[in-house]
Amino acid sequence: MRAAMYYGNSKIEIVNVPEPSPGAGEVKVKVHANGICGTDLHEYYDGPIFISPREPHPLTGRAMPVILGHEFSGTVAEIGGDVTEVSVGDQVTIEPIYRCGECRPCRTGHYNLCTSIGFHGLMADGGMAEYTVVPVNQVHRLPESVSLGLGALVEPMSVAYHAAALGGVGNQDSALVYGAGPIGIGLWFALRGMGLTEIDVVEPSPERRAAIERLGARTLDPAAVDVPALIADRTNGDGVDAAFDAAGVAPAVESALASIGERRPLISVAIYDCPLPTPLLSLVLRERRIQGTICYTADDYRAVMALMAQGHYDTTGWVDTIPLSDLIDGGFTELRAGRRMKLLIDPTA
Amino acid sequence: MRAAMYYGNSKIEIVNVPEPSPGAGEVKVKVHANGICGTDLHEYYDGPIFISPREPHPLTGRAMPVILGHEFSGTVAEIGGDVTEVSVGDQVTIEPIYRCGECRPCRTGHYNLCTSIGFHGLMADGGMAEYTVVPVNQVHRLPESVSLGLGALVEPMSVAYHAAALGGVGNQDSALVYGAGPIGIGLWFALRGMGLTEIDVVEPSPERRAAIERLGARTLDPAAVDVPALIADRTNGDGVDAAFDAAGVAPAVESALASIGERRPLISVAIYDCPLPTPLLSLVLRERRIQGTICYTADDYRAVMALMAQGHYDTTGWVDTIPLSDLIDGGFTELRAGRRMKLLIDPTA
Repeated sequence: MRAAMYYGNSKIEIVNVPEPSPGAGEVKVKVHANGICGTDLHEYYDGPIFISPREPHPLTGRAMPVILGHEFSGTVAEIGGDVTEVSVGDQVTIEPIYRCGECRPCRTGHYNLCTSIGFHGLMADGGMAEYTVVPVNQVHRLPESVSLGLGALVEPMSVAYHAAALGGVGNQDSALVYGAGPIGIGLWFALRGMGLTEIDVVEPSPERRAAIERLGARTLDPAAVDVPALIADRTNGDGVDAAFDAAGVAPAVESALASIGERRPLISVAIYDCPLPTPLLSLVLRERRIQGTICYTADDYRAVMALMAQGHYDTTGWVDTIPLSDLIDGGFTELRAGRRMKLLIDPTA
Repeated sequence: MRAAMYYGNSKIEIVNVPEPSPGAGEVKVKVHANGICGTDLHEYYDGPIFISPREPHPLTGRAMPVILGHEFSGTVAEIGGDVTEVSVGDQVTIEPIYRCGECRPCRTGHYNLCTSIGFHGLMADGGMAEYTVVPVNQVHRLPESVSLGLGALVEPMSVAYHAAALGGVGNQDSALVYGAGPIGIGLWFALRGMGLTEIDVVEPSPERRAAIERLGARTLDPAAVDVPALIADRTNGDGVDAAFDAAGVAPAVESALASIGERRPLISVAIYDCPLPTPLLSLVLRERRIQGTICYTADDYRAVMALMAQGHYDTTGWVDTIPLSDLIDGGFTELRAGRRMKLLIDPTA
């Protein structure tokens, strides 16, 4: 079968490898589509970061080279021994986390923070291939009304849903989302799914603003509007009930902290390249907080799939599919240049 | 009567003014002792900051000049009309917050965040005088076993108690306190009062370490020890359950964030001069948070006074009293130079 094999910095090749076979407790999935994640770009251009060059990962036993791909959906092609949860032919999406089950985060239900965490497609052969084999605890059956194309987006949408849930907001609350990339879009869908109607997405790029506006979102251009002043004016000085940083730049953090009300959170779901100058005094004076968030657990997967089953998510205008053979030129290069927002890989093409 | 009148930057004079008289709902207090706060130093050396030069404060109607002093205890000398809560001769401590009662923070019980907040001794004539008049809702009767000297420390100890409470820690938890100034000492007392036994105070100054060690605290010198490595080693990688920043410098924030466990808070109770480079990625990767905190409410006053009544607070080695006449030379100058830690003013001397 064909697969995108990662050999290290700037070295990914489309190779032919044998189809994997499921062992006990494992499921072989025929991949329908696999999204390219910012993490994949980081591994290619700046890595290896998460992928271990030599040392085998403690949970998977794997190091470079590995097949990339951790955001994917597909159809169960074969089940290993002891697998009763799914059957051949089931349409599924994958929650790609390997966890130890023994560390404190695992014991307390927060396995997204497992101290030995591994990811399918980074620490094990992933979904940028015609087939892949996963442990059955990574498999979620898709609701009937959710397409396999949408199913490939459950992973990034769950990252955003987990972040949105940490905001602790309800349907009478207001929110600001900084950044209208895939996670910002996911935050907007998640917050809408939680009943919020007062959401503004702050995004300097006119193309990204236009894309999320077409989905129904209200946007603000931080180059044209003084966001904290506008929010203060609109809320009579109270500020918004939560802000979400999916931009990861200092002006977003500064603007967000100046726009939230007292005792309200800024939820941080960005990968910050370096320590940012952060106005901590603004936390102190209004008892605000900055709360970090990463990944998801099965609860987030279930919530996103339930919303998808209600027709809540719309991929119009921001998701495209390209063939596996075009991964680097049509995929990584275009994403890095900001000419595409979200790309799914068709491993059969 | 004699009083320390603030006329602006670097201009405080010990003046003779008429004794104030209590109106309806007000209480005249004969001041026993009034602590010098970092805020007073800021007003003197860098201000006016909180004190309004001309514009009358919306709640007190006052601007410069004002009598300083917002940390004090005393004896009720006279009561105005409608005052039934206290009697002449009662020993009291003052909670110096003026609040509007109408803004959202006030309505939700967080009047320490009142949008019109004022302080006795900054926006009204304060306790660095022989007498002062306060609204009765600022008066707390001291428990019998609490001395007037200790009573003058309820205000700063309540700042620290409020911060400690926001840490959400219990008697099985561990904590790090950064900075062993008066607020750091107050944090240590508050956390001990909450039952914690695993507390380390991180402080580079040998004098300050020695002072808090004499109270019974365990300390770490961040210049000699890699604090996050030590904590990781001691906790088998779990980290501490909360950290508290009463230092307000970048190395403290960095060390604290690297030392707390997943989903644990850094409570920020410092006045940061400028935005600090903050490793926000460390929040994201372990779902940590930074929570700001300021001031106190009556609940914190009651908790501190209850602990004081149990003999929990000890002023040995870190609190001294000086005469009002020596406010600048023996007070502000010595505190700014770090030669004294906490000074109370005796307004009768």
